[in-house]
Amino acid sequence: MVKRNPNLDRLTPNYLFPEVMRRVSESTHPHLLHLGIGDTTEPIPEIVSRAMQQKAAELATFEGYAGYGAESGPRDLREKIVSTLYRGSIAADEVFISDGAKCDINRLQLLFGSDVSIAVQDPTYPVYYDSALLMGQKNIHLLPCTPENDFFPDTNSLPPTDLLFFCNPNNPTGAVATREQLRALVNLAHREEMLIIYDAAYSGFIQHPSLPRSIYEIEGASEVAIEVSSFSKLVGFTGVRLGWTVVPKALRYKTKKSVHEDYRRVVTTTFNGPSNLASAGALAALSKEGLKAISRLTTHYLENAQLLKEALAHHDLKVYGGEHCPYLWFEAEGKKSWDLFEELLQQTGLITTPGSGFGPHGEGFIRLSAFAKRETILQATQRIREAWPKSLQPRLI
Amino acid sequence: MVKRNPNLDRLTPNYLFPEVMRRVSESTHPHLLHLGIGDTTEPIPEIVSRAMQQKAAELATFEGYAGYGAESGPRDLREKIVSTLYRGSIAADEVFISDGAKCDINRLQLLFGSDVSIAVQDPTYPVYYDSALLMGQKNIHLLPCTPENDFFPDTNSLPPTDLLFFCNPNNPTGAVATREQLRALVNLAHREEMLIIYDAAYSGFIQHPSLPRSIYEIEGASEVAIEVSSFSKLVGFTGVRLGWTVVPKALRYKTKKSVHEDYRRVVTTTFNGPSNLASAGALAALSKEGLKAISRLTTHYLENAQLLKEALAHHDLKVYGGEHCPYLWFEAEGKKSWDLFEELLQQTGLITTPGSGFGPHGEGFIRLSAFAKRETILQATQRIREAWPKSLQPRLI
Repeated sequence: MVKRNPNLDRLTPNYLFPEVMRRVSESTHPHLLHLGIGDTTEPIPEIVSRAMQQKAAELATFEGYAGYGAESGPRDLREKIVSTLYRGSIAADEVFISDGAKCDINRLQLLFGSDVSIAVQDPTYPVYYDSALLMGQKNIHLLPCTPENDFFPDTNSLPPTDLLFFCNPNNPTGAVATREQLRALVNLAHREEMLIIYDAAYSGFIQHPSLPRSIYEIEGASEVAIEVSSFSKLVGFTGVRLGWTVVPKALRYKTKKSVHEDYRRVVTTTFNGPSNLASAGALAALSKEGLKAISRLTTHYLENAQLLKEALAHHDLKVYGGEHCPYLWFEAEGKKSWDLFEELLQQTGLITTPGSGFGPHGEGFIRLSAFAKRETILQATQRIREAWPKSLQPRLI
Repeated sequence: MVKRNPNLDRLTPNYLFPEVMRRVSESTHPHLLHLGIGDTTEPIPEIVSRAMQQKAAELATFEGYAGYGAESGPRDLREKIVSTLYRGSIAADEVFISDGAKCDINRLQLLFGSDVSIAVQDPTYPVYYDSALLMGQKNIHLLPCTPENDFFPDTNSLPPTDLLFFCNPNNPTGAVATREQLRALVNLAHREEMLIIYDAAYSGFIQHPSLPRSIYEIEGASEVAIEVSSFSKLVGFTGVRLGWTVVPKALRYKTKKSVHEDYRRVVTTTFNGPSNLASAGALAALSKEGLKAISRLTTHYLENAQLLKEALAHHDLKVYGGEHCPYLWFEAEGKKSWDLFEELLQQTGLITTPGSGFGPHGEGFIRLSAFAKRETILQATQRIREAWPKSLQPRLI
């Protein structure tokens, strides 16, 4: 039979979250609490639901039916994204709507092929790394992000790199880059001729205007950066599926050819446009009423994060993140991540994500997701306070 | 800046249909009729619309909200597909629901990498060929499909091939393979250790039970074939987006490793599941009432094809397809496809697709799509009868 893509050998047998769920399915704890995968739990806003219902109703009429849309998504939605979320710093033509950021990250890899060197934060969202392995990229640098460097990589020690994946606010560490840090990154990209793939999937959680939500708030970024983003966490579209990617027209390869033109060709070849139902919902989400609802959702998850953070503080643990990001990141007593994961699962029923699943420098850490119902969070905080494993509490002597 | 994937150089600058639409936008004809891209025009069935409306409403409630689903799609839909469309010849676990067949074709390529030889029908749906170019596959055989061989490739003269893309009913020629032809293909795949990627996106249009709709109706196919299919043409989901791929567990690589296991890993890495709204609609489409509605849609488009066929017969043209497939394929007077395309566009306002856009053996042919409103078809048939360019009519002497 057919030969196997040798790059498949480079992947671990299971993607992280299916492995987490496999172990959870073997747990005997009577009442599990899900703080593992970052999965939204709050209903989508009424205005978004109504827009999707209306679109579904229209599709059953002769007047309202439409077939294929543009591969890069409806024009009105691209314009709304630009005016609402980018305040005009990019053009609608530069936005490609898709079925989600995870899919886009893999599609983007087709632009660069196997012969580029890439860098990823360590720990990192596994998809960047896996997409590079699948593409056959051999030269992959891990940039340690630890409490010592405030979870921001030391760019001075970065070896020559073609492509840098950068997630801000960060999944899994919950860290948020300052304007100065992003400026340094963009300057570095200009100096070293590096392209940044900036993952802004959690940017809606940034609460302070001094902290940039988009890389394009930094001068010169449109010449060195692609931005990937998503409606998943913004409006609860994890199951509805909608994301977008900005590929500025100013972006050039070494050969001066346009990256944007290539991406248009890649998208028309490998994709057939986002769902018209999801697009209708997203357009409503960016209306005045929709944006208010988004703000309520964001506040809910950030309050969850605050509650978890306070509960963990009870045990004098070092806890990071959770301020402008719905993830908390903590370490405990030098234990291995999967051991911590198992101990928490068996003794407290908390489903978490082992930090080592995100890379070598995630070892010893645990990620807690604040994507949960308030009831779950309150139960979780109670267990953290009252049923926390003794072995994870700091020794007093 | 970053290096460019050298495989991008191998693609033509434009994907076929954007190029067609670019030329159409330059046309001065006052009343264009769209018979180009195979895009559905009939409203989706009421029962499908209601199911999607209900799902959209549920997502706005605490009880009905759900986030991420399984990457391979909801279990109930996979089971329904198996029981309704495959009559149990495959298992629900072997079905991967996706956002469409075009996306799946590209995703499947990740299983095989650059070092396999592939074969495609010529003419062919361009995505197979382009996906191979993007993957860096060098060894691509074109299998001529012409009136002389009844548009079925001569498999005896096929050079050693790892991977065969086979579209049935065929886009663009409209040809349909007999059971004997498919049996020969499956036998060949066993004998030559070849894997078939069988595109069944138009199989719902097959009207006679003696003609197989799925490759799995052929004995031994589950050891040599992957089947890709779609709700796009079946139920008007071109804009809603939903497809599926069957990767049987019996499929093995040369190394005996499971192709199915790898595809599960690829899907969890590059995809985040189909839209829950589209999935709800598809489930309703496969209900008893839904299947009746599908049958009405199919009949509508096949009647369109018949009307076009009769009109073209008026000019004594050789017309193929249109019986079990919504595409017609015809040649005229030894003209080049793009010249024919332009002549029809300027003189009759008919938007068609040039056969040469599907491969070298499509040169001289034109594809007509029967995906249109009846009104459009009746106007088109009138123009074909009354305004057909003189230069395209057979010379009498």
